[in-house]
Amino acid sequence: MEQTIFLLSTILISLLAFGFAFLLYAWLRKQPLGNSKIEAICLLIRQGANTFLNKEYIALAKFAGILAVIILVFLPQPIWSDGWANWLTNLTMAVAYLFGTIFSAIAGKVGIFVATAANGRTAIAAKKGIKESFMVGFRGGSVMGMAVVGASILGISLLFWLTGHSTSLLGFSFGASSLALFAKAGGGIFTKAADISADLVGKVELSIPEDDPRNPAVIADNVGDNVGDVAGMGADLFDSHVASMVAALVIAMSIDGDGVFGLNVEMVFAFAGLGLLSSIIGVACARMGKKGNPNHALNASTYVTTGIYVVLTGIITFIRQYEWKLWLIAIIGLAVGLLIGITTDYFTNDERKPVRNVTEASTKGPAFTIITGVSYGFLSVLPAMIGIGLAALLSYKIGETIGTGYGMFGIAMAAVGMLSIVGMIISNDAYGPIVDNARGLAEMGNLGEDVLETTDKLDSAGNTVKAITKGFSIGAAGLTVIALLGAFISEVNNSAIDLGMVAPGVAYLNGFDVMDPLVFFGLLVGAALPAVFSALLMLGVKKNAETMVNEIHRQFKEIPGLQEGKEGVSPEYDKCITIATKGSLKELIRAGVVAIVLTLIVGFVGGVKAIGGYLVGNIVTGLLLALFMSNSGGLWDNGKKYVESGHFGGKGSPAHKAAVVGDTVGDPFKDTAGPSLNTQITVVSLLSSLFSMLFLMFSIF
Amino acid sequence: MEQTIFLLSTILISLLAFGFAFLLYAWLRKQPLGNSKIEAICLLIRQGANTFLNKEYIALAKFAGILAVIILVFLPQPIWSDGWANWLTNLTMAVAYLFGTIFSAIAGKVGIFVATAANGRTAIAAKKGIKESFMVGFRGGSVMGMAVVGASILGISLLFWLTGHSTSLLGFSFGASSLALFAKAGGGIFTKAADISADLVGKVELSIPEDDPRNPAVIADNVGDNVGDVAGMGADLFDSHVASMVAALVIAMSIDGDGVFGLNVEMVFAFAGLGLLSSIIGVACARMGKKGNPNHALNASTYVTTGIYVVLTGIITFIRQYEWKLWLIAIIGLAVGLLIGITTDYFTNDERKPVRNVTEASTKGPAFTIITGVSYGFLSVLPAMIGIGLAALLSYKIGETIGTGYGMFGIAMAAVGMLSIVGMIISNDAYGPIVDNARGLAEMGNLGEDVLETTDKLDSAGNTVKAITKGFSIGAAGLTVIALLGAFISEVNNSAIDLGMVAPGVAYLNGFDVMDPLVFFGLLVGAALPAVFSALLMLGVKKNAETMVNEIHRQFKEIPGLQEGKEGVSPEYDKCITIATKGSLKELIRAGVVAIVLTLIVGFVGGVKAIGGYLVGNIVTGLLLALFMSNSGGLWDNGKKYVESGHFGGKGSPAHKAAVVGDTVGDPFKDTAGPSLNTQITVVSLLSSLFSMLFLMFSIF
Repeated sequence: MEQTIFLLSTILISLLAFGFAFLLYAWLRKQPLGNSKIEAICLLIRQGANTFLNKEYIALAKFAGILAVIILVFLPQPIWSDGWANWLTNLTMAVAYLFGTIFSAIAGKVGIFVATAANGRTAIAAKKGIKESFMVGFRGGSVMGMAVVGASILGISLLFWLTGHSTSLLGFSFGASSLALFAKAGGGIFTKAADISADLVGKVELSIPEDDPRNPAVIADNVGDNVGDVAGMGADLFDSHVASMVAALVIAMSIDGDGVFGLNVEMVFAFAGLGLLSSIIGVACARMGKKGNPNHALNASTYVTTGIYVVLTGIITFIRQYEWKLWLIAIIGLAVGLLIGITTDYFTNDERKPVRNVTEASTKGPAFTIITGVSYGFLSVLPAMIGIGLAALLSYKIGETIGTGYGMFGIAMAAVGMLSIVGMIISNDAYGPIVDNARGLAEMGNLGEDVLETTDKLDSAGNTVKAITKGFSIGAAGLTVIALLGAFISEVNNSAIDLGMVAPGVAYLNGFDVMDPLVFFGLLVGAALPAVFSALLMLGVKKNAETMVNEIHRQFKEIPGLQEGKEGVSPEYDKCITIATKGSLKELIRAGVVAIVLTLIVGFVGGVKAIGGYLVGNIVTGLLLALFMSNSGGLWDNGKKYVESGHFGGKGSPAHKAAVVGDTVGDPFKDTAGPSLNTQITVVSLLSSLFSMLFLMFSIF
Repeated sequence: MEQTIFLLSTILISLLAFGFAFLLYAWLRKQPLGNSKIEAICLLIRQGANTFLNKEYIALAKFAGILAVIILVFLPQPIWSDGWANWLTNLTMAVAYLFGTIFSAIAGKVGIFVATAANGRTAIAAKKGIKESFMVGFRGGSVMGMAVVGASILGISLLFWLTGHSTSLLGFSFGASSLALFAKAGGGIFTKAADISADLVGKVELSIPEDDPRNPAVIADNVGDNVGDVAGMGADLFDSHVASMVAALVIAMSIDGDGVFGLNVEMVFAFAGLGLLSSIIGVACARMGKKGNPNHALNASTYVTTGIYVVLTGIITFIRQYEWKLWLIAIIGLAVGLLIGITTDYFTNDERKPVRNVTEASTKGPAFTIITGVSYGFLSVLPAMIGIGLAALLSYKIGETIGTGYGMFGIAMAAVGMLSIVGMIISNDAYGPIVDNARGLAEMGNLGEDVLETTDKLDSAGNTVKAITKGFSIGAAGLTVIALLGAFISEVNNSAIDLGMVAPGVAYLNGFDVMDPLVFFGLLVGAALPAVFSALLMLGVKKNAETMVNEIHRQFKEIPGLQEGKEGVSPEYDKCITIATKGSLKELIRAGVVAIVLTLIVGFVGGVKAIGGYLVGNIVTGLLLALFMSNSGGLWDNGKKYVESGHFGGKGSPAHKAAVVGDTVGDPFKDTAGPSLNTQITVVSLLSSLFSMLFLMFSIF
């Protein structure tokens, strides 16, 4: 009974989020959508984004279909084992997996739908003022935030209600993250191939403005913002949110009993649900202050949400008599998330030493820009790594004092705490590409200098906030994956009992000793994966950008009057969109497949111990490279903007040329490879949990 | 008795190496040292190198003195504990530590002494032909190779004979590696600051040739080759060789009994001694073939040495009835070393896809050069990581079948095997900077185009071989440090017994479980250190290069007739040397101190478990970043050379400009940060072993 009430409440909150999202959308639709030119361009962007997304989803549907069949036949154990007695488990898992992919795809679709409706309206609203424009951009992003977290909580609640099994939850989570892996990679390749080639020919070669409508790649660039930064990022954070809840639930059930709705399980649902509720309130309250500072407005709503969350979870902990220590842990997780965000800000903020030093180094040439940026990117890793390590250590140590199994549950709850306000985080994050698009539309639609200035301000705030939310989501991924490692161990132990390898109640695995050469072997291979994965994505960007540069050159050469900006002549935008679409679809599968295949090889060669080491190595260098790439990329981007705002000679100066090289290198770092690593880590962890029984049955060592 | 004979034999082999080195040097002295101009420049280079080295050693002597006092007072345990009963142990350790630093310093000095005698003679010999020139360069390098390995074996043999204690061996090794840390970092900053600034003003701004005598930084650049690539690299490999032997000996004694000269201890000495003997034979046999291909000549002598080593160790294993399995393990180690070298070659060889693709990308601008190079650098990590992982796995699994403790001893023996032919490796490696210098001298001494062509060929072979030996030494460091981790555990267990924390015979630590949050916390912090360490070194290079660029600009502006190359006008070379010397001395301490202090903080906060994780994290990302930085740097260097040899527009083309940016970024990657990481990992491992008792006594957790 209590279980039903609780699950109904979380489902209610998720429906509330959907309702609220719908209200926001309705409000958005009422905002004016300016002149016909902007409307036409918006249409092009929306069509481009939808074309890409549809093609991507068709490609991924095939992939998901194959995987679903594999799951049905083999996972968690071969369907013919035990005389077909477990066919229902396999079927449930396959269906849960498909649900995960579908929910993720829908969240991406919704995000694109709203973002492409909001971009033009944000540009038009900028004519009225920065406050109005901010509200349109922010509320547009919030729809995505509400939809993503709503979908996550709804899916998990329903699944738990219907099956109550940890394996099906893992299947759902794996569906979410396998789709996110490809969506993030594909969108990331698309957006950066378009961005780089547009900049390279437009800004560098021809010295025309960033979003000049003469540039054939300019629409592709705007489409990229949507498919990469909105849909891709949405899929990523959907995946993270699901994974953190699932990890916590699996561990909770390993304490309470599988399928049992004990106090720990209840707490996970309660804390996740209240996080969404706090985000709803935070979004509803968000206003821009009198000074019209968008940065301040975005941060203020984050702090408000955090405050509400602390109070609400405190109240429910009191009422339901949860462990206060677990409440404390969730708050520590949240605090560490904010802390990582703040240090990230230090390394990418143009008022601080790192960006200043990099821009100063740019006056000595691009090599210095790169060396300095790489160095600060490397330095930026330390505080976040210490933060994640300390959060894990404290939450485990505090949890441990409650009882057996609570150490790992503590880590999982810290991750749940860190990701609780993700609804707010996504709202802030999706705001970025919307105002970025709005800036482009303002330029292409000739809305005038005042509007450009406003949208520039909004865009710059988007960049800063993005850096913070990225640090946040990397930190959360770190904690989640540690918790998933705990989930992996409980899966292995359950499987070992099922297989009769140990007696019931006996743990087959207690941990992973790095002095065990199998663990160590896995550690080294797992540590190499994030580097290889990043390399494949970046080479994909490079390849596509080269093709697109050739196409842009061709158009400027073959279309008469285009370069001169003759009235009535417009470039063939669609050609560039097609190139980006085809190219990224070709590349996105490869990196993901390499990650999956390498995991299976290590598992079937080295068994569960090697996989344990592999996951740890993967987490460690995955975090390291993700932080390094995101931060150095953000730093170069803001460095370029700093030079462009008139420092060290401003636009066109040698320092600017060097800064542009840095920015271009940073583009695939921060928007393709870096943020995809989160997902790569999660996918590999979940995959390992799902295959745990097969690894136990069939590995060589 | 047998012990004495054995130690005398290894001492004899090391003396043989010194004798052989002296013969090579005597032969070298007999070679003509050309015209007076070259002689004058040689003198400048030698003086510059010696000035730097002396200043560096004075600075390091202070540091070593302080550390020796700390060791005397606190290590392995506070001198006042147990009523001053252990004062002799502390004293022995402090003295052993100082010996380690002194031996390392002497090896560096010898290397510089010979290299600066060989460079001019190599240039002059190039007038006769490539064979003659090759022999001078190679034999010059060999003196260093013999001296380094001779010193390592001599030092360890003497120390073992006199004390027989594992802790004093660890002290010796720590002395060697703490000196190497600073020598490598200081030399690396010196050489790259000079190199980059000379190139930037000379090649890029003024378009004058690489070693043009008008360039004020050209002598500093040549000095840098010696202090960075000869002295620094020598200290690095001295450290690796010592560490591999010490780790193997400590583990052997943990099986045989502390201070006992059992069969395992004997085997370590035998295999190391025979490695040196094989290198002596290999060096003595080295000749250039008829085709005059220096690459082939260098590789052939490596293979010859390897072959001799396999046979000699087989014979002694048969005579002394060692375990054949351990012989096999040593050979596997050696084979994996070669394998890593070969894969490194693939990624840096200009006849292969990676270099070709990067140069092709350079036609699209420097950003593409960087993105592509970083990507291939990331990819290059995988085969080496798998190789090291497999070597560790196989050697452990094979060793394990012999008996308890032999698993870890297997890994140590694989490292000993991999580093056995290091005498040969160093000879090949030191050849590089000698012929590089010779090339510069040929240009500055106007020896004509033919000579330049010859020295260019020799130089290019030096680059390729360098890439291979780097891969080799990183792999060896990986295995050694795993073995050192084993040594750390035995130290901790011994200390725990001494402190009465466990009963004799009971192990305090059996391994490090990554699911223990203390271990995991250490893992994340340790993983961040290599990034931070690299960043500090690269920022040091950048800072010094900027100062030196300003100085070069000043000289060209203020010295009349310099830029035009007026007869009798020469730049103030010494000013640039002074800048590089002062600058690198200021920077070299910082990175090293950060590494040491961070280790102590983690140890005193998290205790031995956190340190275990810390060391593992440090190994994993240390290897990853070292491989990445060395390989991408080598790739950019060879890419630039490929363009310069006339491809994609050749010198002065846009592709060349982009390739130069890649090369400049790669410079501190491959010659400062990348190779210093080896040493950083080793230092931190040894430091942890030395402090193990203090960590046990005083840590917070």
